[in-house]
Amino acid sequence: MEYPQESFVATTFAPGSFWARRREVVRSQTLRHQLQMLKQTGRYDAFKLKWHPSYAEPPTIYPIPNHQFWDSDVAKWIEGACHLLMDHFDAEIDAAVKELVQMIREAQHPDGYLNIHYSVVEPGKRFTNLRDMHELYNAGHLIEAALAHHIYYKHDGLLSPILKYVDLLAATFGDQDGQIPGYPGHPEIELALLRLYKVTADPKHLLLARFFIEERGNPKGGKEKRHYYDVEAEARGEKKHDLPMYFPAARSFWYQQAHVPIVEQETIEGHSVRAMYLLTAVADLVQIYQPASEIGAKFLPTLHILWANMIEKKTYVTGGIGAMKKWEGFGVDYFLPQGTDEGGCYAETCAAIGVMMLAERMLQVELNSHYADIMELCMYNAVLTGMSLDGKAFTYVNQLASSDQDLSQRHEWFECACCPPNVTRTLGFLGGYLWSHSISHQSVVVNVHLYTSATLDLQVCDSTVKVTQKTDWPWNGDVEFEVDTEGPSVDLELRLRIPGWATSWEMTPRPNDPLIKDGYLFLSTEWLQNNSRFRLSCPMKPRVVRPNPLTMQPVAYVTRGPIVYCVEDVDHPWEDHHFKRTIFDPNASLREELRTEPDCFVAIIAENGAAGELDTSSWEGQIVAPSKNEAVSNFRDLCFVPYYLRANRGGRGQMRVGLRVL
Amino acid sequence: MEYPQESFVATTFAPGSFWARRREVVRSQTLRHQLQMLKQTGRYDAFKLKWHPSYAEPPTIYPIPNHQFWDSDVAKWIEGACHLLMDHFDAEIDAAVKELVQMIREAQHPDGYLNIHYSVVEPGKRFTNLRDMHELYNAGHLIEAALAHHIYYKHDGLLSPILKYVDLLAATFGDQDGQIPGYPGHPEIELALLRLYKVTADPKHLLLARFFIEERGNPKGGKEKRHYYDVEAEARGEKKHDLPMYFPAARSFWYQQAHVPIVEQETIEGHSVRAMYLLTAVADLVQIYQPASEIGAKFLPTLHILWANMIEKKTYVTGGIGAMKKWEGFGVDYFLPQGTDEGGCYAETCAAIGVMMLAERMLQVELNSHYADIMELCMYNAVLTGMSLDGKAFTYVNQLASSDQDLSQRHEWFECACCPPNVTRTLGFLGGYLWSHSISHQSVVVNVHLYTSATLDLQVCDSTVKVTQKTDWPWNGDVEFEVDTEGPSVDLELRLRIPGWATSWEMTPRPNDPLIKDGYLFLSTEWLQNNSRFRLSCPMKPRVVRPNPLTMQPVAYVTRGPIVYCVEDVDHPWEDHHFKRTIFDPNASLREELRTEPDCFVAIIAENGAAGELDTSSWEGQIVAPSKNEAVSNFRDLCFVPYYLRANRGGRGQMRVGLRVL
Repeated sequence: MEYPQESFVATTFAPGSFWARRREVVRSQTLRHQLQMLKQTGRYDAFKLKWHPSYAEPPTIYPIPNHQFWDSDVAKWIEGACHLLMDHFDAEIDAAVKELVQMIREAQHPDGYLNIHYSVVEPGKRFTNLRDMHELYNAGHLIEAALAHHIYYKHDGLLSPILKYVDLLAATFGDQDGQIPGYPGHPEIELALLRLYKVTADPKHLLLARFFIEERGNPKGGKEKRHYYDVEAEARGEKKHDLPMYFPAARSFWYQQAHVPIVEQETIEGHSVRAMYLLTAVADLVQIYQPASEIGAKFLPTLHILWANMIEKKTYVTGGIGAMKKWEGFGVDYFLPQGTDEGGCYAETCAAIGVMMLAERMLQVELNSHYADIMELCMYNAVLTGMSLDGKAFTYVNQLASSDQDLSQRHEWFECACCPPNVTRTLGFLGGYLWSHSISHQSVVVNVHLYTSATLDLQVCDSTVKVTQKTDWPWNGDVEFEVDTEGPSVDLELRLRIPGWATSWEMTPRPNDPLIKDGYLFLSTEWLQNNSRFRLSCPMKPRVVRPNPLTMQPVAYVTRGPIVYCVEDVDHPWEDHHFKRTIFDPNASLREELRTEPDCFVAIIAENGAAGELDTSSWEGQIVAPSKNEAVSNFRDLCFVPYYLRANRGGRGQMRVGLRVL
Repeated sequence: MEYPQESFVATTFAPGSFWARRREVVRSQTLRHQLQMLKQTGRYDAFKLKWHPSYAEPPTIYPIPNHQFWDSDVAKWIEGACHLLMDHFDAEIDAAVKELVQMIREAQHPDGYLNIHYSVVEPGKRFTNLRDMHELYNAGHLIEAALAHHIYYKHDGLLSPILKYVDLLAATFGDQDGQIPGYPGHPEIELALLRLYKVTADPKHLLLARFFIEERGNPKGGKEKRHYYDVEAEARGEKKHDLPMYFPAARSFWYQQAHVPIVEQETIEGHSVRAMYLLTAVADLVQIYQPASEIGAKFLPTLHILWANMIEKKTYVTGGIGAMKKWEGFGVDYFLPQGTDEGGCYAETCAAIGVMMLAERMLQVELNSHYADIMELCMYNAVLTGMSLDGKAFTYVNQLASSDQDLSQRHEWFECACCPPNVTRTLGFLGGYLWSHSISHQSVVVNVHLYTSATLDLQVCDSTVKVTQKTDWPWNGDVEFEVDTEGPSVDLELRLRIPGWATSWEMTPRPNDPLIKDGYLFLSTEWLQNNSRFRLSCPMKPRVVRPNPLTMQPVAYVTRGPIVYCVEDVDHPWEDHHFKRTIFDPNASLREELRTEPDCFVAIIAENGAAGELDTSSWEGQIVAPSKNEAVSNFRDLCFVPYYLRANRGGRGQMRVGLRVL
């Protein structure tokens, strides 16, 4: 088991490259901006356990107090800071991490308990509402922060109190007498405990995660042989119809993927971030026990079923998931409208980060380029769009089309601020997503999932193996590789992902009988010994693609390599309807234009691509009309820019990814 | 002001004609079947005010007790029975009406109060939950039943206790000291009070309706200067988030069209039946005060705005309204999927009955064939589909496409049984929808809205004016008219609606310079004196029509005259996907076929109309794919039958109205 949050340390991004520049913005701008936000909003000092005026606010998302996630906001920032401090020491960030850790240590109860809300606002009520409150979710992020802190600072200053907290949790939760037979409404601690287990090898960390996963959704849980969320709701004296804002009806436990046990779930449902974090932990469990084990055989089929249902029927072209705002999650199969005014589109940034996490874990379970394709798709689109070029503004919801009620725009922070620090930490350990490897004695296998300019340094016994890739990805599909070993010779094997979007590819020099398996090109030790430098070329061309017709979206998308494009009003001053009535000619000639402002990117000009405006005058005052009558006229150029770049260059917030085709 | 529930008595349907046969089924079968259902379920005896075991059931639609509507179920049945007894005396029905009336009289409290639930189950809690409970809705239906009873039995046996109840209501509700400044969650009593006012001329009946209408949605109502639903919820000790099942969030008063005062509403929202009943009363108020009055000028613009919003953006091709199951009502503009598996379709039978009511009232406010077109559309499609040919099975929801989870099928009754007796009473007074008239001294104007074989007999001073139409409508567009006066001569003027769907029309003999105004052909007294027999021909041809492209429904519908067609698996044994993947060739040749089984109707055969099956294999495991790749092959005939006829001829419940076109 290898976690990108640990393995990333072996990766160095080439200065000036696409991701190096994004990470540099995060390191130099975002961390400081977010630190300022933590301070301004009260989060920074919250572990001092003093009253904050906002604690008295009525919840925006009933019944969750607005500050309920503050622990995790701080934890994710610490995690991101620790990752990025490795690139470059920053005294201000370092001092803030140290101060926060000190506050966290001091906030811990003598018995190990550690939570802001239940220490300050509702003392005595700990663990009484696992369904709605984010107590264990926060604990999970504290564990992940402690692991990152431990890697960077190389001491137990944060890990030690967190381990004490985990001891309390392990004693508290389980199926033994006197234990709480419950599990968190928002999964996160499961995957954190499994990561912790890798470091501690303490079986109680594994077993607690396994209990949370296996008990989830049990209709006959605990001594009472009832669903735990019913038991605890009754204990709280809650009325059945006192509905959390995200429950469309009483007992909507599918919101938390707890309507039935995980292995009985056949479609992906509910809150999309929760679903991804949960399945990531399930994939970890499968990997830890191994796919062929009883645990593996129990859970792997469910992972396949839910993944396939999600990708085929509930995922947007950007990699975004979740159409339904009310529960921040999945709708019925193929229900994927582009925006609020068409029935909904949510595609939360954190959810796409979750897809990346799950895809990466699935790649470890079974090497298949499909998972890496989706990981790359999310990274360049649904995730990257979540942060502005200057690193100081963010999105939470990532619709494919703006509307008057939901403009395409970013915000410097959110009341529920899960997404901004999640992007920060993800970019922090991004190197861990590029490749995975396994070392065995004097041999090493490296699977290259993603292409960018970066070097992987691996210690293999007494040797250092370096794999370097150099490319202008995602604008150019040529990747120059160099492999090098210092010290005694090492058997290196490489597997290069052939992207699913590539209509052709080429290797120079070309191996004889190249072996491709599940979308990876296998390069043998022998071949690499003779070819320490080589080039993979995956030509990038503008493509016009369409969603499954069952989505009822009569639109086409423009993509190029891994990048999904959109149109914005800033390039089309004539537009005033969010491109809702713009008819796109999918046969228009698509011209690439390399631009350098505000950043280097390839724009795509569809010459005469706007084939006109949708004419609905036949339907005025009518329910139906005899013919389509969709007058086509007024041909104009359309300028497509990467979706992640939206809302960075001014304009009125009008944007659309999928344009109507006739 | 003329109400179809009163004016229908002047109409006689020609025996054996389309509607005469439907009404005969209702009279001879449906009334008895529904009487049996009332008896079986406990509704019949409920006014005896004894405990019924079902009163202890948990509510299916929280927080509304399942028996909450029983008063209205009985009232609507009485109303329908009184209408239909006029056609043909039926001793069993007559005896049941008499027994029910006696029970109702005995159920009345000494102070006039009359309600099953608040007499038996929650005595002492009357008028404490106007928002959710159907107390005043029930009162409205009792008023309507009393009016029908009064017309048929010509005595006050039911009207008298109801007037006493209305006295209590008029004393209870209003803005005076000690009165309740509230209004019903489910409108109905408003339109009933306005009908009552026409009979009684008692200003307190008019003023109570006006208070309910004008106070509705007032954010600063009553002495407390707050929204009344907040005031009463607080008085009930209700928690803000104790959500009725139909509220997506706390204070979703738009569900009841009470989010803002009616005149501030700009889009039609919420529960569709409530919206229609409310606007029908508003149109009545405008008509009673006259459009040019202060009241008329206040409300008429809102009627226009909400009607236009509904018809253009929130109505199905069948005349059905409401896509959203959760609140049985309207979604966002243009959100009109065909079935549950595509995002929703509700189109409740009662709502379409409400559209007919509102359209009829708007025709009185302003004669425009557009309203009659919609009235006719609902009557032949969204309403008529609500009852089986044998009159003993019903639908509540009228989706445009079935799915595995929601088959196209009927039921003999419903726990919430509003629709079946609503169809019964509507067919009872159907004659009132055919035409409207106004008499002034020795002259009369008759507006003919709908065509069928029927005679209108009007007493004009000492003369009898007869207008007879004879036609095979809706299968043949030729209508033979005959006008005749017995007694002193009468100045008769006729206005014949030219249907919006008619691509041409002809009059024989043809008037010189025919005057058409707002879709009505005006026939002058002079012309009629010379032409007492004439023929209007509106050729009916199969048409292929489409929804507004902004609905994102890439489908076409087959219609013919006022009839909307569907396909059913019973005619296409090869179908197993609810026709979801069937591609329709809109250019297929459409052949009419007159059938006589199970009833006379015109089927439409699209020769080679099924151009193949949608092929989505390119999208297997994918989010997007390069091209449409929708293989077209396997041409087969499609047999279209009227939508109202669905689920009458066997089959597996697979049905679709809109077929996909490429």
